[in-house]
Amino acid sequence: MNKKILGIVSYPITAFDERSGAVDIETSRRVVERLVLSGSHAIAPLGSTGESAYLSDEEWDAVAEASIAQVAKRLPVIVGISDLTTRNAVRKARFAEAAGADAVMVLPVSYWKLGEAEIFRHYQSIADAIGLPVMLYNNPATSGVDMQPELIVRIVRDIANVTMVKESTGDIQRMHRIRQLSNGEIPFFNGSNPLALEAFAAGAVGWCTAAPNIIPSWPVALYDACLSGDMEAARTIFYGQLEVLQFILKGGLPTTVKAGLRLRGFEAGVPRLPLQGLDEAPTGQLQRLLRELDSRTIA
Amino acid sequence: MNKKILGIVSYPITAFDERSGAVDIETSRRVVERLVLSGSHAIAPLGSTGESAYLSDEEWDAVAEASIAQVAKRLPVIVGISDLTTRNAVRKARFAEAAGADAVMVLPVSYWKLGEAEIFRHYQSIADAIGLPVMLYNNPATSGVDMQPELIVRIVRDIANVTMVKESTGDIQRMHRIRQLSNGEIPFFNGSNPLALEAFAAGAVGWCTAAPNIIPSWPVALYDACLSGDMEAARTIFYGQLEVLQFILKGGLPTTVKAGLRLRGFEAGVPRLPLQGLDEAPTGQLQRLLRELDSRTIA
Amino acid sequence: MNKKILGIVSYPITAFDERSGAVDIETSRRVVERLVLSGSHAIAPLGSTGESAYLSDEEWDAVAEASIAQVAKRLPVIVGISDLTTRNAVRKARFAEAAGADAVMVLPVSYWKLGEAEIFRHYQSIADAIGLPVMLYNNPATSGVDMQPELIVRIVRDIANVTMVKESTGDIQRMHRIRQLSNGEIPFFNGSNPLALEAFAAGAVGWCTAAPNIIPSWPVALYDACLSGDMEAARTIFYGQLEVLQFILKGGLPTTVKAGLRLRGFEAGVPRLPLQGLDEAPTGQLQRLLRELDSRTIA
Amino acid sequence: MNKKILGIVSYPITAFDERSGAVDIETSRRVVERLVLSGSHAIAPLGSTGESAYLSDEEWDAVAEASIAQVAKRLPVIVGISDLTTRNAVRKARFAEAAGADAVMVLPVSYWKLGEAEIFRHYQSIADAIGLPVMLYNNPATSGVDMQPELIVRIVRDIANVTMVKESTGDIQRMHRIRQLSNGEIPFFNGSNPLALEAFAAGAVGWCTAAPNIIPSWPVALYDACLSGDMEAARTIFYGQLEVLQFILKGGLPTTVKAGLRLRGFEAGVPRLPLQGLDEAPTGQLQRLLRELDSRTIA
Repeated sequence: MNKKILGIVSYPITAFDERSGAVDIETSRRVVERLVLSGSHAIAPLGSTGESAYLSDEEWDAVAEASIAQVAKRLPVIVGISDLTTRNAVRKARFAEAAGADAVMVLPVSYWKLGEAEIFRHYQSIADAIGLPVMLYNNPATSGVDMQPELIVRIVRDIANVTMVKESTGDIQRMHRIRQLSNGEIPFFNGSNPLALEAFAAGAVGWCTAAPNIIPSWPVALYDACLSGDMEAARTIFYGQLEVLQFILKGGLPTTVKAGLRLRGFEAGVPRLPLQGLDEAPTGQLQRLLRELDSRTIA
Repeated sequence: MNKKILGIVSYPITAFDERSGAVDIETSRRVVERLVLSGSHAIAPLGSTGESAYLSDEEWDAVAEASIAQVAKRLPVIVGISDLTTRNAVRKARFAEAAGADAVMVLPVSYWKLGEAEIFRHYQSIADAIGLPVMLYNNPATSGVDMQPELIVRIVRDIANVTMVKESTGDIQRMHRIRQLSNGEIPFFNGSNPLALEAFAAGAVGWCTAAPNIIPSWPVALYDACLSGDMEAARTIFYGQLEVLQFILKGGLPTTVKAGLRLRGFEAGVPRLPLQGLDEAPTGQLQRLLRELDSRTIA
Repeated sequence: MNKKILGIVSYPITAFDERSGAVDIETSRRVVERLVLSGSHAIAPLGSTGESAYLSDEEWDAVAEASIAQVAKRLPVIVGISDLTTRNAVRKARFAEAAGADAVMVLPVSYWKLGEAEIFRHYQSIADAIGLPVMLYNNPATSGVDMQPELIVRIVRDIANVTMVKESTGDIQRMHRIRQLSNGEIPFFNGSNPLALEAFAAGAVGWCTAAPNIIPSWPVALYDACLSGDMEAARTIFYGQLEVLQFILKGGLPTTVKAGLRLRGFEAGVPRLPLQGLDEAPTGQLQRLLRELDSRTIA
Repeated sequence: MNKKILGIVSYPITAFDERSGAVDIETSRRVVERLVLSGSHAIAPLGSTGESAYLSDEEWDAVAEASIAQVAKRLPVIVGISDLTTRNAVRKARFAEAAGADAVMVLPVSYWKLGEAEIFRHYQSIADAIGLPVMLYNNPATSGVDMQPELIVRIVRDIANVTMVKESTGDIQRMHRIRQLSNGEIPFFNGSNPLALEAFAAGAVGWCTAAPNIIPSWPVALYDACLSGDMEAARTIFYGQLEVLQFILKGGLPTTVKAGLRLRGFEAGVPRLPLQGLDEAPTGQLQRLLRELDSRTIA
């Protein structure tokens, strides 16, 4: 396996048993398997899409273990670590390492706003506890923590095994700043679906996305076009899938991706309450979007 | 005991053992006791100030039980319920009821943004599970969920035991709207410290605040002045304590209130990591503010 | 005449001839007269409501002259000065002084954002050019310039004849800060209609408002209740007029106030293009609000 | 001359006589000449950079006439039209047409917020009054008017001679929406300097910029690289000039571009008060940035 992480990093949803509400490990493994077969370049279980925030510690551990086992070293596995307490974030990181993860992706989450020293120490504690590379993950919309490029670059510079950045604000200027502040030396990934084209233009090395769950070939095709430097083709492929990307982002990824999986004939249930399944009208809209997309060949 | 909730609703911090990091129940009880003796009109454990978001379920249960026991029916106890999953929020609400709480205060928190139907059902599930009155709590800055006045009034109207509102956006226009939409029939509390004076002017029936932990007599004095309709005195008392209120809000309540307790000679440790204790310079500033305040008599 | 400015400062609209589009001086004077007779404590022509931003220099001069003449020293007149260039702002201030104004109210407006030094110098140039007291006016929503309390207090401290502040952000915390930073020595006026009650509670000495054009007795009644310290009465009077205040603010003051004048039987035309008159549906809503208000006696 | 507008659209500053403050037509013409010789594909006098908002009508007319005369049909000239009143905006558009402009660029500006019907009618009135193509210009940061993509596309669809869009919010998603809503049929220009690379990736046909005043060859080089589809080269050329682009945007274009011209040995004075010239420290910073840039060859 190539341990180098780049390209399309795919985010599996976590399936729940519709009756008991318990995590459905078997189905969750099959979701992972679909992503491995989709041409993705890495798998990232327990991210935002994986509803990791809604799992108990026991459930979290089980999903981490099962996902890593399912990938079985065919691709790099990056396990998402986000926890309100540093202590439990460290515990999860250690668990992921022991279970065979290739890297962890750390998203600080907040109830009370965190100062820069608090964020730094959080990263330090987690990174020091493991031997794996750490991907710093900035996503203020879900986490309540916004790390400015200056802080991000400082963390990557000063903490040895924090080596990658995932930027999900959707603000391309953040990527510019990270590149400028690090002389282009920090590999950054884009985590905002509707920014995929421009992030590659700006030099992103990869795209972290849940889209491959329902439109597996399109993100990879965009990456390939960008890698080959074909701007025109990249643009066409991007606009071809943009409406789907906008749709799944707007409705909340666990909700929309699970609805999309059902439309794809793969039953993975609905998100955990208070999150609800996608309503009928938007489900119909998603169906139309997928049909349209399927009717086209990729540029 | 008067079960009617109004006036100064005080929020105890939760103490942790500095070495082990475990919850220090004994000290937490003494914090509650101080608030009971401060002249507060109700006690609200496990709120934002109580770092409830950072506790394990077992810890949460222990703090709920101990706080209710400590108050021992001398004042109404309102237990804060905020959990990412509806299931665990329901569990906590039931636990609080069984432990003898007089009411619960429910704050929906989000990782993925919640739609109105999702928020409504969350409240419905919790309210249906218990026989206690529920205080709806809106605090987007910490919870990531912003409930507009229209939604708030609908929830209070349609769910029988949701009977009170705590509004913490700091936007006085929200209170105006709640009053207008409900013809003045929904009792609302202010949860934004620097808005205390104006919220009372606008008709708030109470003020939910952690300030009594360190300046016990001032919030009560403001409430009394407002109750007696003495606008001039209320203004003087408000401005007298405003700088302290601004300070504790800006620095994060668990952090600043714990620093303030230490300055008051009451050792309650620091918040749980990644939250850190207050730095030296701002601690000195808080000390000056408290000295200044103590040197003045309340209007 | 009492030159001291406080209480209800009323803003006349500027009338245009419906056919020619020219300023209708005669009607504009009658609008001023109505405000003088309404019990207002001061008149402020050529404010935001007066569409001063949409007048040519010649028109502006004519309205200033006519308004001052119409008031005829019965009340203080505060002329609004806002111009993109300092040079023309100075010219207008001098004109207002020569025409007999008692004070000017200066709102910096921007196309390109202004730095603090630029704002300060703008005030300095205008204040130095005249002998009148200057009211500093902060209204970022219309002007594009937001002056923080620290800057406001510095300008008032350092420029001798800048002696009053009008704060129109609608953020009560700005008023708190101005009071704190100036030890309560700077008289501040509220310019946000739906904040009228709370601004008085916070210590505002006056309320700058266009509402007296259509509901003349209500603002004065609120001021009187606040002055007498009767919080309960003030609250009732405030909520009694709040819906009208919200309505006129939301629809744009020139648009809604002119519609309201027409409903009051006073024809003052519509605003200047691109601003348009109020549509039929909202006009009907305003009519209902005014009827409701008229049917009630002031507390 | 090729009347088709695309590529680098350059914005001249307007020069003022340092002593009298009057417009310096001769120097302004020489600024235009430099831009014509820089390789720009079109010239846009009286834009934001040209301080058109700060000119009297007479000055505006003189600059329009002189700029058009100076270009002398060598390149298309797009004259900026922004005025608070529709009447004067129409007058300016007619003047520009009579003076020989190839197109006008219309930016609605507001004191009172404009509704969609008001904005539409403003465009209609101007477009109907002339025979030239109109470029719709959205720049809420300076104008106070934000036109959503839906409105923009409707205006272009429904008003015959509104045929191009300049989007300056800096939000790439706006461009995506315009392209989606118009099936890629509306040519859009980017007006946000630090978005230049990504806007071309997203399909922009041109870049409206003041940068050619001080770094003439870099914007053209970026355009050429994008046109040839060479993503790698485009990225290098973009990051090569990005710091300069960020600098001139942040400090306000008239201020920074005039400082840059001086550093380039071309004396064009400072902006009109209240705008001030660039301070010494940032001027030094700009000098360093320009030297660095000059020391590099374009990719």
